[in-house]
Amino acid sequence: MNKFDNIKKIIVRKPLKLDCGVTISNYPLAYETYGKLNQKKDNAIMVFHALTGDQFASGKNPITNKDGWWSYVIGPNKALDTNKYFIISANVIGGCMGSYGPSSMDEKSGKKIGINFPVITINDMVNAQFNLLDHFDIDKLFCVTGGSMGGMQVLQFVANYPNASQTAIPIACTSNHSAQNIGLNELGRQAIMADANWKNGKYEETNSLPNKGLSVARMAAHITYLSKEALQEKFGRKLQERDDLKFSFDADFQIESYLRHQGSVFVDRFDANSYLYITRAMDYFDLNKKFDGNLSKAFEKSKTKFFIISFTSDWLYPSSENKEIVIALNSIGADVGYVEIESDKGHDSFLLNVPDFLQALGNFLNKSYERLNEKRI
Amino acid sequence: MNKFDNIKKIIVRKPLKLDCGVTISNYPLAYETYGKLNQKKDNAIMVFHALTGDQFASGKNPITNKDGWWSYVIGPNKALDTNKYFIISANVIGGCMGSYGPSSMDEKSGKKIGINFPVITINDMVNAQFNLLDHFDIDKLFCVTGGSMGGMQVLQFVANYPNASQTAIPIACTSNHSAQNIGLNELGRQAIMADANWKNGKYEETNSLPNKGLSVARMAAHITYLSKEALQEKFGRKLQERDDLKFSFDADFQIESYLRHQGSVFVDRFDANSYLYITRAMDYFDLNKKFDGNLSKAFEKSKTKFFIISFTSDWLYPSSENKEIVIALNSIGADVGYVEIESDKGHDSFLLNVPDFLQALGNFLNKSYERLNEKRI
Repeated sequence: MNKFDNIKKIIVRKPLKLDCGVTISNYPLAYETYGKLNQKKDNAIMVFHALTGDQFASGKNPITNKDGWWSYVIGPNKALDTNKYFIISANVIGGCMGSYGPSSMDEKSGKKIGINFPVITINDMVNAQFNLLDHFDIDKLFCVTGGSMGGMQVLQFVANYPNASQTAIPIACTSNHSAQNIGLNELGRQAIMADANWKNGKYEETNSLPNKGLSVARMAAHITYLSKEALQEKFGRKLQERDDLKFSFDADFQIESYLRHQGSVFVDRFDANSYLYITRAMDYFDLNKKFDGNLSKAFEKSKTKFFIISFTSDWLYPSSENKEIVIALNSIGADVGYVEIESDKGHDSFLLNVPDFLQALGNFLNKSYERLNEKRI
Repeated sequence: MNKFDNIKKIIVRKPLKLDCGVTISNYPLAYETYGKLNQKKDNAIMVFHALTGDQFASGKNPITNKDGWWSYVIGPNKALDTNKYFIISANVIGGCMGSYGPSSMDEKSGKKIGINFPVITINDMVNAQFNLLDHFDIDKLFCVTGGSMGGMQVLQFVANYPNASQTAIPIACTSNHSAQNIGLNELGRQAIMADANWKNGKYEETNSLPNKGLSVARMAAHITYLSKEALQEKFGRKLQERDDLKFSFDADFQIESYLRHQGSVFVDRFDANSYLYITRAMDYFDLNKKFDGNLSKAFEKSKTKFFIISFTSDWLYPSSENKEIVIALNSIGADVGYVEIESDKGHDSFLLNVPDFLQALGNFLNKSYERLNEKRI
């Protein structure tokens, strides 16, 4: 029995032509839901996850036994209120929590697909997840939302399906991956590929995983998720269970111990090849280029109401990049709101208990839902 | 014959008790000089190098055949004008360009010292280099200067030898290594240690070096040396010798190709264990703590004239951290000047052709030297 046997999934029959040219069909898409779909089917929110997220956005993740990645956001009386809304959250293709990805079995060879998996894009991820609307027989979502890579999926979703969601909330994201972010992802990939256990991606055929490389990739990424100020405030130069420096390469400082821990717990829940594929999809993301360098064109067929959220201390997807999306929407007279939340918690702010953020998110959803219902009366 | 046989070095006879408790003596210290020491011996400038620097600050490095790391700064009619000044530049202990370090031979075992080298500090580096004053029979330097880790050495030098230099110019540095910087260094160390060829630091006994890990460490560091803006300006999303994305893990983007190149050329000139030791010394640097949390105390015995330089886009050693040094000096009425140079080139600005920086540096030196000579008349 496979650890993913008991998780919810659909098998997508409909063929999907990927951006790379390969067509896939009959592939699994793992998902989770929270709350109840109402009779009118007008209360559904689709949530898109970030690089290392999965479908278990809230509650307990049954595979890792940890809280879902958006537990602060999704739940009864929370911003994404499960008493009111029906939340759908899927694992992206390329992922490793039950959706079609490098760790899926290749039926022909009986081995894991590994590095033979096609290089996918944010566009492919979104097109795969769109099949869940059919599955739940939903004509129009109330909202699509997500942070970081999840926000990129929100933008791509509205571009692909201009009338499929009433509202859209891209959070802490960008319309095109910056050189620095491509560089940071490439660093992570090179760390994985440098691990002798990676074996050109065919590590599944042996008994040893490229965990050291994956752990280094995670450490690098983790530094970028926090702000310099937050790291200084939380760790500074505090020593790890010792009174003085040990003059060795042990973890003398708490920040070292913390990063090593982040690396080592990550490898238990994430597949190294998935990390390669998903970072690649992020790097390839460039909605501007897809619309002839004019981002506005991506949204001109849509009447979706946008609300864009960024965080002051996020240096990975800074406010300036989020504002480019606002400007593109404003320039075609789209319905768009924007808020920059004061937070010293860096890019991770969208995952953490940041009251101003949670309140802004909840208010926008509740007011928008009320207004939509008023219109219908 | 060893490649370091023809480089200049002194053998330091005088025992040096390191911060870790170990005493070293009869160790080599490799150095280079530029310009001529005048008869009064009042025109000497000691230059301290950064993490991956060496004694070859100017001219052609005979080992790498590349230009010295401060070629923009040191030379005839340049800021550190070799027509006027006598520049002394040493390789730090722990380094790998001929000074005593992990790649030195252990005479007893006949093998390289490797990971048996003691963990050293910025204090140890400075104390070792102080021996060059005796060697050149110099009572008092005209200036001590350096950027990044070189700047830390400048601060430590004045703290240890309050009357050994007329002026001091710490550039783009800090008085105590931040949590983010410790984290970034730890990331580099873990990348090296994750390389199967590292073999607990004993790679010299085999024929294979931990080059993949060292290359990843360099890639990570390189991203931090440039600003997000400079990376975007220089590379953006430009593709590497191709018209479109290749849907593979090759270097599609120029930034990927550039970083891979930076990693691969670095391993030809740098020793992985030296990288561990020198980053460790940087992380251990905390002049505040050494003086009971009061940085001013480090300088209160000194009459050295300070000039501190930082760069607007340097996020590794931001202006705020440089200003802390200015504040500590001001609070004891020390002679201190400060300039924040506008530059989009990030931390690397101190190594590059940034005219405002070069002019400020040159002016300070020339005016200070003139005034010192006026006083004597």
